[in-house]
Amino acid sequence: MKVLLIGASGTIGRAIDYELKDRHEIIRVGHSSGDYQVNITDSQSIRALFEKVGSFDALVSAVGKLHFGALAEMTEKEYALGLKDKLMGQVNLLLIGREFISDGGSFTLTSGILSDDPIRAGSSASMVNAAVNGFVRGAAIELPRGLRVNAVSPTVLVESMGSYAPFFRGFKPVPAAEVALAYAKSVEGAQTGQVYRVG
Amino acid sequence: MKVLLIGASGTIGRAIDYELKDRHEIIRVGHSSGDYQVNITDSQSIRALFEKVGSFDALVSAVGKLHFGALAEMTEKEYALGLKDKLMGQVNLLLIGREFISDGGSFTLTSGILSDDPIRAGSSASMVNAAVNGFVRGAAIELPRGLRVNAVSPTVLVESMGSYAPFFRGFKPVPAAEVALAYAKSVEGAQTGQVYRVG
Ligand SMILES: NC(=O)c1ccc[n+]([C@@H]2O[C@H](COP(=O)([O-])OP(=O)(O)OC[C@H]3O[C@@H](n4cnc5c(N)ncnc54)[C@H](OP(=O)(O)O)[C@@H]3O)[C@@H](O)[C@H]2O)c1
Ligand SMILES: NC(=O)c1ccc[n+]([C@@H]2O[C@H](COP(=O)([O-])OP(=O)(O)OC[C@H]3O[C@@H](n4cnc5c(N)ncnc54)[C@H](OP(=O)(O)O)[C@@H]3O)[C@@H](O)[C@H]2O)c1
Repeated sequence: MKVLLIGASGTIGRAIDYELKDRHEIIRVGHSSGDYQVNITDSQSIRALFEKVGSFDALVSAVGKLHFGALAEMTEKEYALGLKDKLMGQVNLLLIGREFISDGGSFTLTSGILSDDPIRAGSSASMVNAAVNGFVRGAAIELPRGLRVNAVSPTVLVESMGSYAPFFRGFKPVPAAEVALAYAKSVEGAQTGQVYRVG
Repeated sequence: MKVLLIGASGTIGRAIDYELKDRHEIIRVGHSSGDYQVNITDSQSIRALFEKVGSFDALVSAVGKLHFGALAEMTEKEYALGLKDKLMGQVNLLLIGREFISDGGSFTLTSGILSDDPIRAGSSASMVNAAVNGFVRGAAIELPRGLRVNAVSPTVLVESMGSYAPFFRGFKPVPAAEVALAYAKSVEGAQTGQVYRVG
């Protein structure tokens, strides 16, 4: 399969690349790195990417920013960041990418454990990750041409504990390589509308 | 308790009013109806409402619009409507309302069954309802002063089947009076961070 990997240079992206590269052709996309560049917060940039890449069989998104901050300091502006970037950035990859994807192709988006297992300073993450999961469940049943969509919802990664550990005390971190398996299940399996929780 | 009921004139709002009015002082708020008016999509209008009403013990929100439409016709613009109105409108009721609510007070927001049980044309509802639930779980653990927040997630109402039935074939509708009980549980109980699924 021709797999478009958005966020290929990231902690999760690199592990997905490693998991899939022996069986598939990987097109690596980053913000500033990779074979192609895209800014997921800009729908014109997303369209330009697909116009350059042409048709593909699977899109895997391992990107998305949001604001971590104490609830006491959060206003609608801080929530808007995650809604625009991690939520609608990934949603737009599907809304625009569906024009370019082959019949039977799949989209795999990334959410995260905080939708269900909240931490301090994580209310935007809880909101945005839940929204990604909800969108995936809703969109899956309406996709035409055998297209599929799933989300991978990882807990915190072993590889990210250097900076994230103080926020995730008591969470059992999972190696990126294990998270990458869920993306392989989504891309190479036949399920749709699923949220694969890892960790 | 002094209960601020946003959407008091609505199908759900009227049932909440009926359930709570004998035990509490209800301040009825609508867009054009009620004791006070507010536009939840405008944070200045929300602030003006709280400045008029003064302190209160519980806020119940039974409002929120979003776009229903076939996935094939959805673009980021259609999703933006629900994010601005049903999601951030209700989130802003908490973000701004927390400055005015008494110690130990509660916020109760409304999501809906489509977060988990999707229908055609409902991908924005699945996204937005899930986001409301995620926000509630995330925000609950960071609220100060014994403040609480829950969501009520109803299935389709008996009273709404006149117009909604074609979209909800096979769903067992629930009477508004039964949905109203979940709001009473949230307001008069002690739980927080819960999503009360009704139906
Ligand atoms: N790390 C964790 O523990 C963890 C746990 C659960 C969920 N997640 C989620 O997984 C996703 C990836 O996390 P990560 O830790 O792997 O991220 P990361 O290491 O920071 O990598 C981010 C990747 O996204 C790309 N990128 C950044 N901004 C972009 C934009 N505007 N448009 C397109 N691409 C952009 C970067 O490209 P360049 O390198 O070219 O800038 C990079 O490839 C995020 O949604 C995160 O919330 C992470
Ligand atoms: N009905 C159902 O079957 C059902 C099922 C699950 C979830 N829900 C959710 O429950 C909520 C209420 O639904 P409903 O059917 O009871 O609604 P509804 O009958 O249409 O009532 C809407 C209420 O919201 C007020 N309102 C409208 N726009 C507003 C704005 N911009 N700012 C402030 N208030 C505004 C209206 O006030 P005015 O009358 O003054 O205009 C009215 O009181 C919605 O979020 C809906 O998605 C409904």
